[in-house]
Amino acid sequence: MVTLIFRAKMRPGKEDEALERLRTMAGTVEAQEPGALAYLFHRSQQDPSEVVLFEIYADDNALQAHGQTPHMGELRATFGELFDTATVKVERLERVAGFAREG
Amino acid sequence: MVTLIFRAKMRPGKEDEALERLRTMAGTVEAQEPGALAYLFHRSQQDPSEVVLFEIYADDNALQAHGQTPHMGELRATFGELFDTATVKVERLERVAGFAREG
Repeated sequence: MVTLIFRAKMRPGKEDEALERLRTMAGTVEAQEPGALAYLFHRSQQDPSEVVLFEIYADDNALQAHGQTPHMGELRATFGELFDTATVKVERLERVAGFAREG
Repeated sequence: MVTLIFRAKMRPGKEDEALERLRTMAGTVEAQEPGALAYLFHRSQQDPSEVVLFEIYADDNALQAHGQTPHMGELRATFGELFDTATVKVERLERVAGFAREG
């Protein structure tokens, strides 16, 4: 199991477009990537310009596959128009314990 | 829905005890708090002394109830022995989109 927290700030004036892009992305990941176990997009309450994505993959193969999908390629191609790439942070976590029971 | 990321650093030499405490805590939350929808404990790979808890509650009432449970009271009573309380950070997130399909 691979767990990541991905963060990036939306460019000013691009918030609606960026959030719509992420909603579409989440639907595509759910439909096409069985190895993606959770893909939850949020805005930070402290800084509403920041999006926070909590991601769980079944294993490293599922994470690698995610990076190679056409929808990730398309997101990458326009990412810099919607997000400030200098603000991207990725944090990898090691699961200790716990549960998730919501859909 | 209420989503939080809680962080705290374990005191040096207390890691095993702290992680065992969190494992027990996660089991109790799962068994006794139906309004807790996810409660996932991790260690940060960048800083293995840091624990990162990703929590989802059905609503503010469920979060309030969580804070008032006997197991939270017990954790609070010994928290400072296991964790450096000066390192506690709580971040509240607003869900935009996404899914979770693992248990």
